[in-house]
Amino acid sequence: MPYVNIRIAGSLSREQKQKIAAEITDTLERVAGKPASYTYIAFDELPEENWAIAGQLLDED
Amino acid sequence: MPYVNIRIAGSLSREQKQKIAAEITDTLERVAGKPASYTYIAFDELPEENWAIAGQLLDED
Amino acid sequence: MPYVNIRIAGSLSREQKQKIAAEITDTLERVAGKPASYTYIAFDELPEENWAIAGQLLDED
Amino acid sequence: MPYVNIRIAGSLSREQKQKIAAEITDTLERVAGKPASYTYIAFDELPEENWAIAGQLLDED
Amino acid sequence: MPYVNIRIAGSLSREQKQKIAAEITDTLERVAGKPASYTYIAFDELPEENWAIAGQLLDED
Amino acid sequence: MPYVNIRIAGSLSREQKQKIAAEITDTLERVAGKPASYTYIAFDELPEENWAIAGQLLDED
Repeated sequence: MPYVNIRIAGSLSREQKQKIAAEITDTLERVAGKPASYTYIAFDELPEENWAIAGQLLDED
Repeated sequence: MPYVNIRIAGSLSREQKQKIAAEITDTLERVAGKPASYTYIAFDELPEENWAIAGQLLDED
Repeated sequence: MPYVNIRIAGSLSREQKQKIAAEITDTLERVAGKPASYTYIAFDELPEENWAIAGQLLDED
Repeated sequence: MPYVNIRIAGSLSREQKQKIAAEITDTLERVAGKPASYTYIAFDELPEENWAIAGQLLDED
Repeated sequence: MPYVNIRIAGSLSREQKQKIAAEITDTLERVAGKPASYTYIAFDELPEENWAIAGQLLDED
Repeated sequence: MPYVNIRIAGSLSREQKQKIAAEITDTLERVAGKPASYTYIAFDELPEENWAIAGQLLDED
């Protein structure tokens, strides 16, 4: 541990995922003392049709 | 918040997702006083091969 | 299935949970044809200190 | 219940999923007295690009 | 990875958790070739009032 | 969205949670263009008895 799950609608580039993973792992090590080698980060990229805010799917216009 | 995650085996049509999202958002506002604009709903549609009940994958016959 | 996970900051009364569970189960049966007996609903009530929006914990004033 | 979510990077064959589901369902029945018919198991197979350990995406070389 | 999340209503004894964790880790190593040292297992024990099946909270009589 | 779930064994101080939430929200805004006001972060602090690595509960000695 820790296990971090990042869920977004839409997609991220590989470069964005790499940078986000590196920064969050660093945050958890620096702030909470969690060794980097124990930090798992899993990204879930959902279709916009599969995410709703305020009762509206995000692919609506 | 709230964050609601709906996980099913198989798929839903866009119309079903829209209706489910609208009704759940309404339920949470009416019953629990959660403002609609704060409610996130995320749908995960899993292949039937990825869901088991009673130790059997759902794509079995 | 379906499996529905409802995550909120703060708490709900037993009556609210019962009503929410009944309504969501009904929604999934009526809209998506999911038999009520297969629908699991799990509530997670998090301390406000454990939920952040816009980078601020919800117990902040 | 129980609801078990197995998340991996990469993929599993159908035969692996079937065997894992059968064994875990058996474990929960034998060790914890949970009737097999109530046990749901959901597999999430993530692209290696979507999983990081130690701040590195798993598809890196 | 893998990351396994086991969610139940009610509680498990420490001995049950230990045995379940050992067996699932063994299953994933033997069946899917996942090294034991990479397998994380997280147990969530929910109050029965926080779990519904068929629209009824599990603490109902 | 995004929705970020941070799961650890043991606990974090309020100050650690606040700092982690602020940094991750900033990372997602700066790297991925996600407006801070849409980012939800939920922390789950599990008892060490409820987390296993390599088939051993973390409270073992």
